[in-house]
Amino acid sequence: MPFPSAGRYNTVSAPLQVFARLQEALHTLPELRKDPITGRWVIIATDRARRPSDFIRQAVSKPTAPRLCPFCPGHEQKTPPEVLAFRQSGGANQPGWSVRVVPNKFPALGIEGDLDRQGDGMYDKMNGIGAHEVIIESPEHTLTMADMTEHQIEQVLWAFRDRINDLKRDQRFRYIVLFKNHGEGAGATLEHPHSQLIALPVTPKRVQEELDGARLYFDFKERCVYCDIIRQETTAGGRLVAETDRLVVMQPWAPRFPFETWILPKHHESHFESAENATLQNLAWVLRSTIRKIDKVLEHPPFNFIVHSAPLGENPMAHYHWHVEIIPKLTKGAGFEWGTGFYINPTPPEESAKFLRETGLA
Amino acid sequence: MPFPSAGRYNTVSAPLQVFARLQEALHTLPELRKDPITGRWVIIATDRARRPSDFIRQAVSKPTAPRLCPFCPGHEQKTPPEVLAFRQSGGANQPGWSVRVVPNKFPALGIEGDLDRQGDGMYDKMNGIGAHEVIIESPEHTLTMADMTEHQIEQVLWAFRDRINDLKRDQRFRYIVLFKNHGEGAGATLEHPHSQLIALPVTPKRVQEELDGARLYFDFKERCVYCDIIRQETTAGGRLVAETDRLVVMQPWAPRFPFETWILPKHHESHFESAENATLQNLAWVLRSTIRKIDKVLEHPPFNFIVHSAPLGENPMAHYHWHVEIIPKLTKGAGFEWGTGFYINPTPPEESAKFLRETGLA
Repeated sequence: MPFPSAGRYNTVSAPLQVFARLQEALHTLPELRKDPITGRWVIIATDRARRPSDFIRQAVSKPTAPRLCPFCPGHEQKTPPEVLAFRQSGGANQPGWSVRVVPNKFPALGIEGDLDRQGDGMYDKMNGIGAHEVIIESPEHTLTMADMTEHQIEQVLWAFRDRINDLKRDQRFRYIVLFKNHGEGAGATLEHPHSQLIALPVTPKRVQEELDGARLYFDFKERCVYCDIIRQETTAGGRLVAETDRLVVMQPWAPRFPFETWILPKHHESHFESAENATLQNLAWVLRSTIRKIDKVLEHPPFNFIVHSAPLGENPMAHYHWHVEIIPKLTKGAGFEWGTGFYINPTPPEESAKFLRETGLA
Repeated sequence: MPFPSAGRYNTVSAPLQVFARLQEALHTLPELRKDPITGRWVIIATDRARRPSDFIRQAVSKPTAPRLCPFCPGHEQKTPPEVLAFRQSGGANQPGWSVRVVPNKFPALGIEGDLDRQGDGMYDKMNGIGAHEVIIESPEHTLTMADMTEHQIEQVLWAFRDRINDLKRDQRFRYIVLFKNHGEGAGATLEHPHSQLIALPVTPKRVQEELDGARLYFDFKERCVYCDIIRQETTAGGRLVAETDRLVVMQPWAPRFPFETWILPKHHESHFESAENATLQNLAWVLRSTIRKIDKVLEHPPFNFIVHSAPLGENPMAHYHWHVEIIPKLTKGAGFEWGTGFYINPTPPEESAKFLRETGLA
């Protein structure tokens, strides 16, 4: 194809080598790392901002006195009726609870009806059937998870487990996502400490990707990829943040985001809802201390955590391993990431894990 | 597993049906739609915010007079030496250009070296080899793509094509991502109008997903899925935004984001870099008018656009079809989306397409 207006322009094309040397003088070579589960490659750009203080931050401000908060005790009538509550006094939908679970007033999915799969020309659709619930983590409006007692967080984890075990009896649901958005920058719209649960009639794509990748690894090695990760990380130690009897807190080999942190049970288990109480007790401690460390090192950033667990209605899986992913919101996803699923991470996990490990908080 | 402190708490569990009726009275049922290429399910939440004015917006402010902008004419020495320029006067790295392409001064990948694939225990890595270039779209600092002439945008598209055709001779590269971040909210760090190019030694995961899905469809139907989409959309019309001789502007059946808009060539073609001049001329017109429409309806939102094209070093593919995806940044991605790759879109594409179609701008 001829260049259309070649006469009008000069095309100046310098050979790539000319500026490569300049580049080399300024920078160290970045690394491409492959996530062993999904096969996703990530650019770990070692010459970019990497100190915690280098990140543009938007600190989550301390919640102030509540004004008409629908999640505060005494306002129980402002939410749909509760589906679960742990309480020391009071009746249903009255004050006296320590953790309360209610349907989301503006749910992303509806609970009633059939799935009703249909075509529309070449396209496929079904009714938006599912559950969308809010786990109110404490009656105290101004507490963040970092300030709660371990026992309070333990109760939140019990609520997670109880709700999954209740909802999984509904044959329409295939997967439950449990997540927390902390701070406006991470998508939270209400200040009162809460997490959310969405039950879906399909397995989400990223989860399916993990399941498929873990299955592929298992078929080849006859070992769980997550168990192998735990073994390598606890031996090497460079990406380890903390370790308890039952859990490992670590940063992954190929993190998509700076300070991305995973919590995994040491004992192989595919479904979060089968976690023993002692594991949840450990998890409460570990969640609290990890969030406190992140708060200290990164000065209270917004963050998300997501529980990754095996699909409902599956027997225990030898190849999949539940875990929690914590992602501080430090960078803005830009066109490159959205368009490709290929991430540029300015911070090697070895450095960020060291920062968290060395804060000295318990 | 027994509930550990059953004596201390009452567990109040109301049946799901109790509040379902309440929910039903308040809301219409959302819809789950499957993307025909990747198989990704999206929640189209019809009862949520759906008017353009309902979105929290962060308008991109008009660029002001430049202060020491490295992309402005006269400051050519502030960037690495140009690799391509269209100019009517001046020599290399001097003013007189209309479009200028330079290596990114802070590249995500390095241009020099071997890929050097290695293991690290169970993990895989390689050198971060690639190219990262900036396409400076105009010498005028304060122009946005919406204000440029069609001919100016056409030159930008020529630069895209020329750079791919140059870089693809490098056997280390497998894929080139072309994208634009417009506005700080979309990840832009410099105001001067520019787009970016990243050449990668691997095919990114989302692109591979499109390729695999399109291949699966082709194997089953013996037709290109994108060609089928174009046929269905131009017939139905509800998700169509505009149509020219050579291009279709439409919103997809299962958009991840409100106002997500795709531009596809009508004539089947897998590689952007083989686009004919007449197609690029059409594309310049269509890009300009689509951005103007988005600017008008959504009041100058930040946006990203990404060129999706087939991998380098592949022959023309019957199953893949290059296209451009434009994504206005209107919502904040939250924990649910990050953790699952499952998106909640508050706006049905039939409604958002109608808004754009009816703005009456050309």
